[in-house]
Amino acid sequence: MIDVDILDRNIERMASAVRTRGLTLRPHAKTHKIPEIAARQMAAGAAGLTVATIGEAEVFAAAGVDDLFIAYPLWLSPQKAQRLRRLSQRARIAVGVDSTEGATRLGTALGSAAGSVSVLVEVDSGHHRSGVHPEAVAPVARAAAQSGLGVAGIFTFPGHSYAPGMPAEAARQEQQALNQASEVLAAAGFESSRRSGGSTPTAMLTGGSAATEVRPGVYVFGDAQQLELGRCAAEDIALTVAATVVSHHATPADGPGRFIIDAGSKILGSDRPAWASGLGRLLDYPDARISALSEHHATVEWPEPGTLPAIGERLRVIPNHVCLAVNLVDDVAVVSGGALVDRWSVAARGKNK
Amino acid sequence: MIDVDILDRNIERMASAVRTRGLTLRPHAKTHKIPEIAARQMAAGAAGLTVATIGEAEVFAAAGVDDLFIAYPLWLSPQKAQRLRRLSQRARIAVGVDSTEGATRLGTALGSAAGSVSVLVEVDSGHHRSGVHPEAVAPVARAAAQSGLGVAGIFTFPGHSYAPGMPAEAARQEQQALNQASEVLAAAGFESSRRSGGSTPTAMLTGGSAATEVRPGVYVFGDAQQLELGRCAAEDIALTVAATVVSHHATPADGPGRFIIDAGSKILGSDRPAWASGLGRLLDYPDARISALSEHHATVEWPEPGTLPAIGERLRVIPNHVCLAVNLVDDVAVVSGGALVDRWSVAARGKNK
Repeated sequence: MIDVDILDRNIERMASAVRTRGLTLRPHAKTHKIPEIAARQMAAGAAGLTVATIGEAEVFAAAGVDDLFIAYPLWLSPQKAQRLRRLSQRARIAVGVDSTEGATRLGTALGSAAGSVSVLVEVDSGHHRSGVHPEAVAPVARAAAQSGLGVAGIFTFPGHSYAPGMPAEAARQEQQALNQASEVLAAAGFESSRRSGGSTPTAMLTGGSAATEVRPGVYVFGDAQQLELGRCAAEDIALTVAATVVSHHATPADGPGRFIIDAGSKILGSDRPAWASGLGRLLDYPDARISALSEHHATVEWPEPGTLPAIGERLRVIPNHVCLAVNLVDDVAVVSGGALVDRWSVAARGKNK
Repeated sequence: MIDVDILDRNIERMASAVRTRGLTLRPHAKTHKIPEIAARQMAAGAAGLTVATIGEAEVFAAAGVDDLFIAYPLWLSPQKAQRLRRLSQRARIAVGVDSTEGATRLGTALGSAAGSVSVLVEVDSGHHRSGVHPEAVAPVARAAAQSGLGVAGIFTFPGHSYAPGMPAEAARQEQQALNQASEVLAAAGFESSRRSGGSTPTAMLTGGSAATEVRPGVYVFGDAQQLELGRCAAEDIALTVAATVVSHHATPADGPGRFIIDAGSKILGSDRPAWASGLGRLLDYPDARISALSEHHATVEWPEPGTLPAIGERLRVIPNHVCLAVNLVDDVAVVSGGALVDRWSVAARGKNK
């Protein structure tokens, strides 16, 4: 269930903040996977979208988005190369690379279409997932150029910003890594006209001359992680899962209350970082916590034992990680002022390939 | 990717083991959500299927399964009541109840159709999720009977069997809870002709006179959880996720190796019990561990740094919890002897309602 008024406010606030700092906004569409939301982001001034897979790029290209960055070190099979060639005919396409093998394969598999796809070399700014050390970008850029691809610049994902107290430090490391990598590339003869950073926790902090664009995703909806990181407030939560109380635990009158709602890991997702206070939150009951999650049950710990919501009562649940929750449904209810105003298809759901 | 030969062996082995002990097998179909697998389970002697939601029941009833147990304390909206009435016209339907409120609502909402739906009272045998204490079953059964429902018996889910060393103890508690609850019901004038227990870890242990049927689900595929609990072996794993190595970490020659594959939480699910050694396993490399998972990246810790699989190499990943993985795809590749022989639709994917 998406509150479209909150959604629009979140989209406008991020667009405005990024514009003020002279950066380009390229929101990550893996969060929502919904063309109607992409259209709102583009209308608010986004330069294009970020996606994680060729399948997501196909959905958003078909919806009319003509500038897409697949921020992932793709390994191209012949089938994927064919799809990427087709994509490059209808949109401006950039792809991530982080190895000489991957860059060579990308250019070779694209063949004569390599010139119409550009690459950004992925830099590890401290998250230690994919990406090369800033000092190691030149060989990857050279391999890309030698196989016919255009080298547009660099990108990084400061995913280590997802921890309490980390956003500012991660943003600092991001800036440092982008600066260092662009200097190394410049020395090797490559201009980094695109220097892409950002995540929702750092997007408001990314800046200086290091980055030219940011790629936040979760900001459109917010979720329990962002709430607990202090990157959004309860009134910024645009997506919740409607659930019903189905069972009360027999608990002693003096202990904490506990009940079961019919929203489990198959609708909320089961991401739980070590620092999170639980597996999700209730929008209208900030002191309640989801302490356990199975596929169709969430166990809610309730602060006041005497006041458990009745069996049958409906509650609004905030998922821990909203990107996983959206990917579990075919469509979403769109509400405004509490009334259902539309349904949107999650058109890129399950587009992992 | 499902290996149909292993699948068939798993289905036959469980069917045979349950038959030998004189129990009824009612597999939980939430694991696979695939009619072709349900048909194989029924052909191997299952009495019917267990499901978690009305939506799953609708899919399997449409596929011809005529005996379904919705093992969940449903709270019926008018729309759900209508769907359940329709279901009860095409299949023998039982539903879980664990509160007087839920039981009364169920019977009232079904109206004149209440008599064609029976209920099993859910008993908490130690998992402390839904279900009432064995001593507290009588009021729930009475509320069901008073609202026109047939009371068929009791059920429990010994989910606390999902921990090392726990299956035997959980099976013992399950038996004790079923015995105790059926005695309490008998004293209240209700015969428990169906006493349903079982989970994959305990299904081979459930027995005695306590249970009449078991409801294992995961046994058809196995997964990394079952492997680490010792409830299946590597050669019993029937479902894997094909993934490609996309990135190598720069690691010191004397440290452990590390690389990234393109299978993340949007294809594997992100369940990780505290006792699990990681977020998934590699079928062909038993010493490797998935140490981190984001939406499209899995970080693999590799025991021997000098021998990392090449970028571009394909690997078979065992999800931690296979029920979540299947629910993330629209269809599955079916292989036999390494060759693709079919594709099956995950017809009940996303049927949460």
